[in-house]
Amino acid sequence: MLIEFIARHSLPRRGILADPDEILLTMGAQNALWLTAQVLLTRRHTAAIEFPCYHGLREILKNSQCNLISVAVDKDGLPPSEMPKNADVIFSTPSHQSPTNATMPLGRRKDLLSLAGEIDALIVEDDYEFEISFLGSPLPSLKSLDEDGRVVYVGSFSKSIFPGLRLGYLVGPEPFIREARALRTSVLRHPPGHIQRTAAYFLSLGHYDSLIRKMGQAFAQRRKVMEEALSLHGLSVEGSGKFGGSSIWMRAPEDVDTAELDLSLRKKSVLIEPGKSFFGSNGPGSFYRLAYSSIPAERIPAGIKMLAEELQVGFENRMATP
Amino acid sequence: MLIEFIARHSLPRRGILADPDEILLTMGAQNALWLTAQVLLTRRHTAAIEFPCYHGLREILKNSQCNLISVAVDKDGLPPSEMPKNADVIFSTPSHQSPTNATMPLGRRKDLLSLAGEIDALIVEDDYEFEISFLGSPLPSLKSLDEDGRVVYVGSFSKSIFPGLRLGYLVGPEPFIREARALRTSVLRHPPGHIQRTAAYFLSLGHYDSLIRKMGQAFAQRRKVMEEALSLHGLSVEGSGKFGGSSIWMRAPEDVDTAELDLSLRKKSVLIEPGKSFFGSNGPGSFYRLAYSSIPAERIPAGIKMLAEELQVGFENRMATP
Repeated sequence: MLIEFIARHSLPRRGILADPDEILLTMGAQNALWLTAQVLLTRRHTAAIEFPCYHGLREILKNSQCNLISVAVDKDGLPPSEMPKNADVIFSTPSHQSPTNATMPLGRRKDLLSLAGEIDALIVEDDYEFEISFLGSPLPSLKSLDEDGRVVYVGSFSKSIFPGLRLGYLVGPEPFIREARALRTSVLRHPPGHIQRTAAYFLSLGHYDSLIRKMGQAFAQRRKVMEEALSLHGLSVEGSGKFGGSSIWMRAPEDVDTAELDLSLRKKSVLIEPGKSFFGSNGPGSFYRLAYSSIPAERIPAGIKMLAEELQVGFENRMATP
Repeated sequence: MLIEFIARHSLPRRGILADPDEILLTMGAQNALWLTAQVLLTRRHTAAIEFPCYHGLREILKNSQCNLISVAVDKDGLPPSEMPKNADVIFSTPSHQSPTNATMPLGRRKDLLSLAGEIDALIVEDDYEFEISFLGSPLPSLKSLDEDGRVVYVGSFSKSIFPGLRLGYLVGPEPFIREARALRTSVLRHPPGHIQRTAAYFLSLGHYDSLIRKMGQAFAQRRKVMEEALSLHGLSVEGSGKFGGSSIWMRAPEDVDTAELDLSLRKKSVLIEPGKSFFGSNGPGSFYRLAYSSIPAERIPAGIKMLAEELQVGFENRMATP
């Protein structure tokens, strides 16, 4: 039931046509990425990832012992011109680059696909929060532009329903899906059947569309309040996503360690996400991420004020230290 | 909550005392066995498994590329005297050997543990259906007799609540659990939080104990009806489990292929499980398993009658063939 719904409703919204045997349900996008890495990569292969990128993906690829190359993203996401020619698999988040929220323009999507054709690489497209697109219609997915079966698509219900649900899916050529299914069966059999069925009913009875609409309205308001508060306190936004999303990528002054900032703010019940883990071991410590998906709008300004004060206190302390 | 319940209620029933950081929740016993194999075995290690054994485990170990040795079980389960001295990890199902239902006597459990000490092997004890023990109190688990931390224990709610729930757990030394948890995080993060919480409430409010009692009564009756029907038609029982369980291990005449038998019976809505997959690639084709856990007692005699008739028809056909 759930696969049918994904094939008939979710994927067509992303311009993707897929048969049920080209779709595999997974335990969230994490599990989809893990299965993909196991099936596509050995230690003889090279994977290209975005820099910065989702830390869970870097962890998976490190464990797979493949050769790992990071390609720095810019304001339009992953630049095809910087792609190493020996990449076998390219991992990308074109809708909302994680964590910078950059959206890859259509032209670059086409360039990335033709580059992948030239160097004979596969692309894994992690489209983890395409539904959370409340500021405009999302651009066509890479998978929908793909004419020679190079793109494996990763979808997730974690951002749109809830993360603890652990439901995601893979879309790819049938032989790839068959192999991923055999591996999933050995690792965990299948995502719990009653969750699949409950989600299928929730989606097919229309509750999902209604939820997405309500979430979009709430997120748009929260985001507006957050942007106003950030602007009021003069905090630097590094990336905020043209189509929506659930977070804002922030940059603190260069000498701020946002892991420490997180610890001090945590005591005041203000939660930020330090950015270092997105860069791997030697990343800068001054980036951080602010999520607005789980906080009521009226609580946002006070939190941003405390964040700004904490940064100011830190600044004064550093100035006072000889 | 669920880990607390397992530590305070489930494990003490098996004589096991464990701290929460010695317990890991998994996606069913399958996932627990898979994680264990990944953490404990490389291609340089030797695993000993029971012959016949649960096919899902053989699949996992084949994929892990370790050296794999099968040890034939007898009516008391895995015989320690036949254990190869180079075994690094021994996989066993002492409560109800899968699929023969043999229960390992206490003396042999102690022998197996002291042997593991001598050859410095670890034991993975799969106690997948200990709750389904309606004919007598189960013997102490290997883990409860283990004094030097050699036993990793696998528990499951698949047989007692329902298989689609996909909830199981691992119990082992804290460093082992830490490593298994890191791997689980990379592979799938965690079992869905709301399932964990629902199961924890179900268990802690007492519904679980009541369910187990009701299941025990129903299973005892179904088993009795099945045994009477088998005896009436003169079908050969190979192993039926002294303490209960959910199935009976059967032997057809040697020239019967139970995979074919399954196909013919399936058309009449009688479901049996052909035994071949429990033996690996070259096993005998004449064993099969009859489960009584999901069928009302009143439907059992008619099914066994059809099974006996099908075997008789097969016999006559073979006799008629020159």
